[in-house]
Amino acid sequence: MSSALENEKILQFLPFSSVISSSFWHKLTQMKIDVYALNDEPVEITGYYTNQSTSSRLPACLNVDYSSFDNPQVSDIGSNGILCKGLLQNTNTLEAFKDINKQNAINKCGEQIWNDILSGAALSNPGLLTRFLLLTFADLKKYQFYYWFAFPTLVFPSKIILNEEPKELNKVLSNEEILQFQQAYDEFKASHGQSAFVVVKNPELGYKCHPLKEMVNLKDITWIGFCDPSSLPTNPGWPLRNLLALLAHHHKEHLVGLSVLCWRDGVRDGQRRVGSSLLIEIKDVIYPTESDSIPKCLGWEKNERGKLGARMVNLSNSMNPERLVESAVDLNLKLMKWRLLPELNLDLIQNTKCLLLGAGTLGCYVARTLMAWGVRHITFIDNGRVSYSNPVRQSLFGFDNCLNGGQPKAESAANSLRQIFPGMISRGIDLRIPMPGHYVTDTEEVEKDVQLLADAIDEHDVVFLLTDTRESRWLPSMLSAYRGKLAINAALGFDTYLVMRHGQREPWNPGQVQSEKSKGVMRGALAGRQLGCYFCNDVVAPGDSTKDRTLDQQCTVTRPGISLIASGLAVELMVSVLQHPQGGNASAEISTDAMTTVQQQQQQEMDNKEAINISPLGVVPHSIRGFLHRHQQVLPATEAFFNCTACSPLVIQRYAEKGYAFLAEVFNNADVLEQVSGLADLHKDIASIEDWDYPEESEGSTD
Amino acid sequence: MSSALENEKILQFLPFSSVISSSFWHKLTQMKIDVYALNDEPVEITGYYTNQSTSSRLPACLNVDYSSFDNPQVSDIGSNGILCKGLLQNTNTLEAFKDINKQNAINKCGEQIWNDILSGAALSNPGLLTRFLLLTFADLKKYQFYYWFAFPTLVFPSKIILNEEPKELNKVLSNEEILQFQQAYDEFKASHGQSAFVVVKNPELGYKCHPLKEMVNLKDITWIGFCDPSSLPTNPGWPLRNLLALLAHHHKEHLVGLSVLCWRDGVRDGQRRVGSSLLIEIKDVIYPTESDSIPKCLGWEKNERGKLGARMVNLSNSMNPERLVESAVDLNLKLMKWRLLPELNLDLIQNTKCLLLGAGTLGCYVARTLMAWGVRHITFIDNGRVSYSNPVRQSLFGFDNCLNGGQPKAESAANSLRQIFPGMISRGIDLRIPMPGHYVTDTEEVEKDVQLLADAIDEHDVVFLLTDTRESRWLPSMLSAYRGKLAINAALGFDTYLVMRHGQREPWNPGQVQSEKSKGVMRGALAGRQLGCYFCNDVVAPGDSTKDRTLDQQCTVTRPGISLIASGLAVELMVSVLQHPQGGNASAEISTDAMTTVQQQQQQEMDNKEAINISPLGVVPHSIRGFLHRHQQVLPATEAFFNCTACSPLVIQRYAEKGYAFLAEVFNNADVLEQVSGLADLHKDIASIEDWDYPEESEGSTD
Repeated sequence: MSSALENEKILQFLPFSSVISSSFWHKLTQMKIDVYALNDEPVEITGYYTNQSTSSRLPACLNVDYSSFDNPQVSDIGSNGILCKGLLQNTNTLEAFKDINKQNAINKCGEQIWNDILSGAALSNPGLLTRFLLLTFADLKKYQFYYWFAFPTLVFPSKIILNEEPKELNKVLSNEEILQFQQAYDEFKASHGQSAFVVVKNPELGYKCHPLKEMVNLKDITWIGFCDPSSLPTNPGWPLRNLLALLAHHHKEHLVGLSVLCWRDGVRDGQRRVGSSLLIEIKDVIYPTESDSIPKCLGWEKNERGKLGARMVNLSNSMNPERLVESAVDLNLKLMKWRLLPELNLDLIQNTKCLLLGAGTLGCYVARTLMAWGVRHITFIDNGRVSYSNPVRQSLFGFDNCLNGGQPKAESAANSLRQIFPGMISRGIDLRIPMPGHYVTDTEEVEKDVQLLADAIDEHDVVFLLTDTRESRWLPSMLSAYRGKLAINAALGFDTYLVMRHGQREPWNPGQVQSEKSKGVMRGALAGRQLGCYFCNDVVAPGDSTKDRTLDQQCTVTRPGISLIASGLAVELMVSVLQHPQGGNASAEISTDAMTTVQQQQQQEMDNKEAINISPLGVVPHSIRGFLHRHQQVLPATEAFFNCTACSPLVIQRYAEKGYAFLAEVFNNADVLEQVSGLADLHKDIASIEDWDYPEESEGSTD
Repeated sequence: MSSALENEKILQFLPFSSVISSSFWHKLTQMKIDVYALNDEPVEITGYYTNQSTSSRLPACLNVDYSSFDNPQVSDIGSNGILCKGLLQNTNTLEAFKDINKQNAINKCGEQIWNDILSGAALSNPGLLTRFLLLTFADLKKYQFYYWFAFPTLVFPSKIILNEEPKELNKVLSNEEILQFQQAYDEFKASHGQSAFVVVKNPELGYKCHPLKEMVNLKDITWIGFCDPSSLPTNPGWPLRNLLALLAHHHKEHLVGLSVLCWRDGVRDGQRRVGSSLLIEIKDVIYPTESDSIPKCLGWEKNERGKLGARMVNLSNSMNPERLVESAVDLNLKLMKWRLLPELNLDLIQNTKCLLLGAGTLGCYVARTLMAWGVRHITFIDNGRVSYSNPVRQSLFGFDNCLNGGQPKAESAANSLRQIFPGMISRGIDLRIPMPGHYVTDTEEVEKDVQLLADAIDEHDVVFLLTDTRESRWLPSMLSAYRGKLAINAALGFDTYLVMRHGQREPWNPGQVQSEKSKGVMRGALAGRQLGCYFCNDVVAPGDSTKDRTLDQQCTVTRPGISLIASGLAVELMVSVLQHPQGGNASAEISTDAMTTVQQQQQQEMDNKEAINISPLGVVPHSIRGFLHRHQQVLPATEAFFNCTACSPLVIQRYAEKGYAFLAEVFNNADVLEQVSGLADLHKDIASIEDWDYPEESEGSTD
């Protein structure tokens, strides 16, 4: 029997070869991170092939690219492109990729094709016959993509025997006949756009192409045609197999003796070339001996070693490193959304412009933590130079930055951010922040500095107060309040820290009545706009505290660990505020420091019910005070002080009215602040109460 | 009167010029930081001058150098050196330096000299006449030193009038006479070593030098001699002024007509040269008209602009930068001791060798915090390469470290430490830590890795566990317990952290009975050796948890701030342990998490009384668990578990006996650990209890 078969001309088909554009992987990466997350259910995608190949050396390509995810139209892929449906299954792990039962997967797809054949759907739409499967595992940390294509084909019939070798069309037809057919095909394509058709040659009317579903009504069928991705002179491409299965089911009686036109329609040297299309005559058809309800299915693609197996592509070497680092950084953040915090708004964080006042220990660590959260826009203000003692504590500087007198800190820190992550938009401003009670000698210079600082605050969304003196925080505190910016403050003691957000109100509006006193506190919480600032607890104006400081008072003498703790908390506080539905107006609980853990948990359950108080990241305290000596942390919330020297309406109104003239007074004499804020009167009241020798009980007229 | 004076030859003196060796400033820096701290009281130092100058172009130098602080002997400064006493007053601030009343200061010194004259002390020891004052302010942050010398001299007599210009000795005496005197002087110097003397020439015996105190008994005084730092041909040096004051008080009758020998005794071209010594004859002496009880005093040095004023020297440019950075780093730490923590033992910290397992987010921040505490010796173990997502979170890497496949992390981190601070002794070991349940294929390779890790643990004092899986911490936990090293563990969740110290016991000693169970807990605290390790709460052995992890489980998906918090706390915990008088055996309170702040304060007061529980830096908890969602922190302390898979005596004994053979079993099958530790039996017991269908109440026989 085998010797008998040897002389038979058995029809063999050229399988598809998959071609994956790197844009496909980029788009898959994006979809995985932003859309699929942990979902590994199969999703529909679209590939395409063409019957344009005019070189017999090219494989029959099935292409996927970035458009595969977008339900593309024929117009998207060129006039001779044929779209085909695919199923993409992207697993979460390499193990899952390996564990998928490949035969089951392809059988499932074969079943779908068979059902489309049985139902007649494939007669109406022969495109349903050409499908593909794509299994992937995307190792997004390494930019390595594992994948395996299948082009499912039904083993039905099981064998096709030909009369003779396939013949090229131009060996059978004259040029004129070819042109006639070509015209008929073009008409069909324009009206039906299908990839398979029935050709009838009428001696008078010439060639005409019909949709497959009309076959039942046609007599004297000349050819069954299909768009053939193969360019081999001896073999048709893969789509013919399922087409023959369709015909074998619906038109079994026509199959023996049928001529098939493998239609190849390319352009070479500017000329349309269709002459290498093949004509095949079927001599006999053999059907499977087992009578399964569904024919067997096969079609897993072989890999580059000619074996049935997966392939891997490593894009990390071919990608632009700066683009790689961008997506790597995004990836780590977006992974938070997969499982833990789907509601996290990362764009909001990324687009937040942060101004860091101080590029010292706190400034460096705050900048690093912001970067890790995806913040792209960071500006430093500092007027120092990098000194030898800095690098071991200030994490954006190295030994080299100290040499030759030291680089300017703000600029050096900004450069460092870009060396860490080239996508950073970072800038350094060398500027000394003018301070109350620090007498101004060069008033023009100082006015320019004030303007620079005010402009910088205008241009940013969040202002971090990270300088090393109290009084250098006054001007930025006041300007942030004036412009309605979120201010985050961090300050260190030897083994203590304070991290707080200033109460955030609307930008100052002279028409608005803002000078009324608070009407008290509701529900054990203060709204964000009611919260105090760093200076709200002071009863004297900030003055010159830098005079006469001994060395240990000039240097930040702190336990090194607390600068990391405070910086980490400061940025987390900012992020919690940003993620809160009410932003800077997020309310803060008044105090939890006297609560036991059990009480706090009860409180937490309550808060979870009243979700309004909670950002997706948790509570948004007003301030966090930590004491390393006993590892204690408390969360005091305090109300804005009507006579505050920095954020009170009285002070801000004066600045709004007088501008720099007011500031110049304050710089030369901090007492001015006590007068404007009303603190001076308060002192007088207190003094006069003391003078009264307490004649009777008083309920405190000091407000 | 003034015209009459014009023709008078008034004796004028060449003042001292101060010469400060840079070694003086270095020593001052060290004394300020380590000894004086905030103390700004004047301290005695010693300077010196010589009468060796043979060039008339050189000033009369008074020198101070590093030896000035050490009470030097003449032998330290060369044979012709003359020591003189000085008072150094180093202020804490530049303001204090400026504010010192200069006239008062020099008057006080003048009073001392006058008292030594009145008491006769200066007759016995004429060295008491030549004193100096030195005011300094050392800006140790900038290596700038402000200073001002005074060479106090009494205005008494107020004027000395000469017969004629001073004459050089070789113009008056023959060479032979000079040689005769020279011999007499050398004898005097050898026996008395004083800088002033009385010369008598006996026609028969020749020259003889006598101590000043013998002057009262001498007749026919030829000269009064003194060692003259001046080399001018016309003027004696400054020491003569107070010497004349001494003579004016004790021997007023001799002064008019006195001859003074300004003795200059140098070497030039290999030859002793004394011929330029001067002889001065006093014609008249004028005394102050006011009769103050103490003569006026003057002598503040003029600065480089010829004005009475301070000078400043900036050493930062001339110092070796690597030395500068060393002392700058030390300075910041030593300042802690000035005021806040005099008992802090910085050497102990500096000499602690730290091994960091993991050079990721935690490893980088822990290393930075250790450096800031002055730790010099840091070794990283990691087997990863720097990837694109790392630098924004891992603070020792930059974009450049990611290129071309990424540098090995351990080595790259170690290099980075040296770029920050060249004094670091840092090393990276590229090593994959073998893990329980991770089947070993290359057993030789793994055995080598185990040996490398064990050696590294041996060579260090503290082991930080900072890897990203639980099971990679098992082997180093076990080895640290075996070797009795302090292990500090830090682990992150999405918004939680755990920082803990493992219980620290003595290195394993087979002779010692260590396998008995703990006898319970005293006084609400656990001694360090009783504390558990990271695995003590586990009831199953650590296994392979890395299989089948999705991308968000592979990457550290954490709120970026918590890695800073955990790293800061981990290092502070280590430092607190090191500073505790009992080190790793420091006891930990069992739990404070249910206490209110008030209760905790009461506890604190109690602890302060029982200082044994407290390190100078505060409590030394067993563990710190933080929850960022509600900004909570608790300090649980738990006892070591007798069946712990990592630190129990059962497991360690097995390792001690079988070595790598035991480990190889564990790597291939984590169940071995459950058998060795007794956990397996425990499971059986529990299972059988469950089988019993709870026939009666049982008090738990599960231990």
